[in-house]
This record gives sequence, C-alpha cells and structure tokens, in this order.
Amino acid sequence: MQVTVLAGGVGAARFLAGLVQCVDPAEVTAICNVGDDLTWHGLHVCPDIDTLLYTLAGLEGPDGWGLRDDTTITLDALGAVGGDTWFRIGDRDLATHLRRTQLLAEGHTLSEATAALARALGLHLQVMPVTDDPHPTIVETATGDLPFQEYFVRRRARDIVTGFRFPGAAAARPAPGVLDAIVSAESVIIAPSNPFVSIGPLLAVPGVREALAGSSATRVAVSPIVGGEAIKGPAADMLRALGHDVSAAGVAALYQGLIDVFVLDEIDGALAPAVAALGMSPLVCDTMMRGDDGRRRVAARVLSALHT
Amino acid sequence: MQVTVLAGGVGAARFLAGLVQCVDPAEVTAICNVGDDLTWHGLHVCPDIDTLLYTLAGLEGPDGWGLRDDTTITLDALGAVGGDTWFRIGDRDLATHLRRTQLLAEGHTLSEATAALARALGLHLQVMPVTDDPHPTIVETATGDLPFQEYFVRRRARDIVTGFRFPGAAAARPAPGVLDAIVSAESVIIAPSNPFVSIGPLLAVPGVREALAGSSATRVAVSPIVGGEAIKGPAADMLRALGHDVSAAGVAALYQGLIDVFVLDEIDGALAPAVAALGMSPLVCDTMMRGDDGRRRVAARVLSALHT
Repeated sequence: MQVTVLAGGVGAARFLAGLVQCVDPAEVTAICNVGDDLTWHGLHVCPDIDTLLYTLAGLEGPDGWGLRDDTTITLDALGAVGGDTWFRIGDRDLATHLRRTQLLAEGHTLSEATAALARALGLHLQVMPVTDDPHPTIVETATGDLPFQEYFVRRRARDIVTGFRFPGAAAARPAPGVLDAIVSAESVIIAPSNPFVSIGPLLAVPGVREALAGSSATRVAVSPIVGGEAIKGPAADMLRALGHDVSAAGVAALYQGLIDVFVLDEIDGALAPAVAALGMSPLVCDTMMRGDDGRRRVAARVLSALHT
Repeated sequence: MQVTVLAGGVGAARFLAGLVQCVDPAEVTAICNVGDDLTWHGLHVCPDIDTLLYTLAGLEGPDGWGLRDDTTITLDALGAVGGDTWFRIGDRDLATHLRRTQLLAEGHTLSEATAALARALGLHLQVMPVTDDPHPTIVETATGDLPFQEYFVRRRARDIVTGFRFPGAAAARPAPGVLDAIVSAESVIIAPSNPFVSIGPLLAVPGVREALAGSSATRVAVSPIVGGEAIKGPAADMLRALGHDVSAAGVAALYQGLIDVFVLDEIDGALAPAVAALGMSPLVCDTMMRGDDGRRRVAARVLSALHT
C-alpha cells in the first residue's frame, strides 16, 4: 500500500515513526515543508526535514528537534567570537547542515541531498521536500513581517500573527515525484501538523493543492488540535488570531474539499457532527502519540480507517 | 616603530608571536596570504589567517594550525553522513569559519571579518588579508593543476611541482591599508615563510611588489630554509623542483631587489657572502623559534638589525 504523508515537523515526525512500524517503509513517502528553512552562517538548514530524519532514525532530541545528547562546543565558541547563537545547533546536528550545504554547492538538488541524508541515516522511506526551489514562509505580525525562524525561535512566537505569505510559491515547482506521490498513492495523510505554517506551504506550491483535490487516494487529516490546544507549537494561537474556531473542527474547515476522513481525538468527540457537516467522515480515536507505542497505535488506527 | 610583516602560515605566526613581545602590538601590521583559502562545505576558511590569529592568541594546535585540545565531534559526524573529512576542522575552530562566513554574507569584506575575529580573540596588532578579492594559489604539478589545499593537505604535498599560478591576481586589488602599511612602515619584514606559496601570492597582487620595491622602510627577510631544509612545509622540495638553490641563498635570490637585510641561520653562516653578492646585508643569527623564548629572541635579533 502506497502511503503519502504531507508533513510538518515534530507532530509529523512522530506520526511517521509510528507509520513505518505498520507499513513497509519502502511504501511510505513523506512530503516535507521547507518554509522554515534558513541559512545559518552560510549553511542550509532544513529544520522540518531534519526533525523527520532524526526522529525516524530514533535519534531526535527530547523536544523533538535536534539530536539527543548532542553537544554545543561549536555554538559556544561561535558566541565567544560574536556570532548569533539564538538558533541552537549542536555539534553532531551541524554535520547534517554541512553535508547538505556541500551537496547543494556541488549542484545536487535539495531532493537529492535529502535522499542522501536519509540513506546515510539508514532510512528506507522516501523523504522529499515539497519543492527544490526557495519557498520561505513569512509570518506577518503586528510588529512586521518575519521569516519563520525569526518569528518562531528568535522571538519565541510571541508576536501577534496577522497572516502568512509565501513569496516564493508562485515560482516554486513541485520537486520530482511530489505530485505523483499524491496522485498515485492509495492514501494521502495530512499529518498532525500546523495547518498554516506546515501544511499551508505545501499546498501553496502550484499543483499540490490541485493534485490533492483530484487524487483518487483516500485522503485523511489528523488534527493537530486536541481539546482546543495545540499538542506542540503555535497552531492554536494562530487559529485564534486569524478568527478561526480554535478546535479540531476549525482545522477541519481549513481542509474542506481536500479531505475524506478527519481524525480527531476522543476528547473532541462532540465535534464529530461539525466535521461531518463539512463533508468529511469523522474518525474519533486516541490521537496522543506518547512514546513509541503511542505513535504506532495512532498510525495503526488511522490506517484501519483507510480500509473501511 | 611601525613594523609591517608579510606573512604566510606557521613560520610567520611564530615570528609575529615573538615580535609582539618586543614591539607594541598596536604598531605591528601583518599582511596575510589568502592563496590557500578554501570553501569547506560552504564555509569560508582562511588557514593562514587563522594560524596567525590562533598563534597570536596563544591557542594554536601542537603542529601550529587549528586550536589546541580541539575536539572533532562535528567532523566525525560529517564523515558518518558521507562528507569529506580530509581537511581537518575541529569543533571550536569551526566557529571561526561560521563567524567569518556570516560576516561575509552580511556584506562585510574579508578585511573587516578578519579584524572582527582578531578583536574577538583579544589581539591588538593589525591582521589584514593582502586582498579582499578571490586570489587562490594553483599549484601546477606533474599530475595536473591543484588548488593549494588539494595539493598540500589532501594529497600531502607528494606531487612533483612544476610551477604556480595566481589566476585571481590580475583582478585582485590590495585590501585597504595594505599598500600604505608597506610604504609608510619604518620596517617591512618578510617572515620565514614559503617564498612561492606564502610570500609569492602577496607579491602577485598588483601594486604590492612595487610598494615593497619602492618603500623607504628597512626591508628584511628571514630565511625559511635552514641547513638546506624547510623548517616546515614543502619550501625545500619546491626550490629543488623549480631549479633553485635549496638553501637560504636560494631564497635570498628570489627576493633580490626587494630586500635590504637577509637573515640566515648560524648553520648557514657560510652563505653570507653569497647573500651579500645579491646586494643584501646578511644577518647571521640563531633563527630557530623554539618555544616562546625562541620566538622572542629571533624577533629581537631581527629588530636590532633594523637600528644599525
């Protein structure tokens, strides 16, 4: 069974880590957000892709990003010579960015560099950026426009969000294989990721939204909002600031016309009729991905819905 | 007394470390070779400049390059993801290259980046690249043309050298202050550095050789060849391969017309008449810079010659 997952960062990584325990990884494709990529002291850093790679390799840090037990010798020395250190990159993590930057400098695409890193980490699923072109997410806030990591890490997501822009989107082409993975899969799953800054940038690449809308796959989305709160990150604040319902149903509304099944947590069971009213089948289950078992359980439950 | 030193790597760094013990560092300017610079996984690395900075800060590694007691956590991880690791960069050393790369990316010149790093390391002398423009040294060998670090580090200087090229030289402009530091200094010292690949690239920048030839400074060169051997590096092999005398006198001949005083080691005292025959005053003394005392002794001896 070919399964394609539209993926953001930590939530998607954990879902995928469960999924590859239930499905042959060779049949899984992750299409990744590059909107939060940044150039860090000359190096090309892909935080969402790296979170996926590290989590799938079982190496992720305690908060879901970076590498477990990584050191910061270089970062500390960088601060001592006057460098910016607000974006925290550990010593072993740094090797990933050096390798990616070198592969890009040699003329490889981001798709190729990502595939090479996935292979080097022993992964068997396909991990692909949604585009090989520059496609940053700009967060519009009350204090001005901010590149995503400026908003999220440097300023700790404290600014009032008024909107989002994807200035590279119009010129971005889907990376090789992306549209095909959406159109020809048996199922496409929107991971429990932020609809605005994780999934939004994917759908903003010309052709991706249309491919999803027209795909004959069973299309499932897993809510990143549980009990009115984001499991991780600023999704709830963004829903609120932009005038949406701060609920799983509020997320479902954003995917109307794109999704067949919407997965919401048991705690939100009362929202099932609202989801059904959007033309989606609600699937109510425990969506909390605590530990390795939790990840596998959620993936298995979502997969079971595809066959019914 | 304003002293300007034309500098290569380890030999120059050790000489300068002695010099700043004898002269107010604020009166010392080092003009540095950038011919061996390289782009390492996207980062701008200046091996000769860094050797100077680290040595003058008292932080250099046991062989004169890199940082003492540095670790290689990132380098080891880089190898594990398929990256090239033949150029050995330690974790704390890496911070220097990240900072430099960032400053260049922000639009600063290499001169400005170098000055910022020198300040961050607490140095009080002026350290300036000979040019802010790209100015690589290409080593012509029996097996083909090689960028300097490919020849020197990756292939361990084993190829037969047939010549040198400086393809950026014609378009390179002296960095701000370089010509003035040569013309207006009371003394200009060519450090005990390789005449072909350390000093040669400095003199190849348009205006530098002419500034030295026309300077009213007392101009001194210290032989990097002692007893027919290079203290460090491939200078002796290069002299031999290119048909020069493999001796201090062979180096002196390369500087004819540019130098007033040529400093050669006691062991080479018999070459003093040959040096004198080139129109330079020979200064014979112990030039071995063993330890901190040795560095200071050599610098003091060279300085004493300037006043006689």
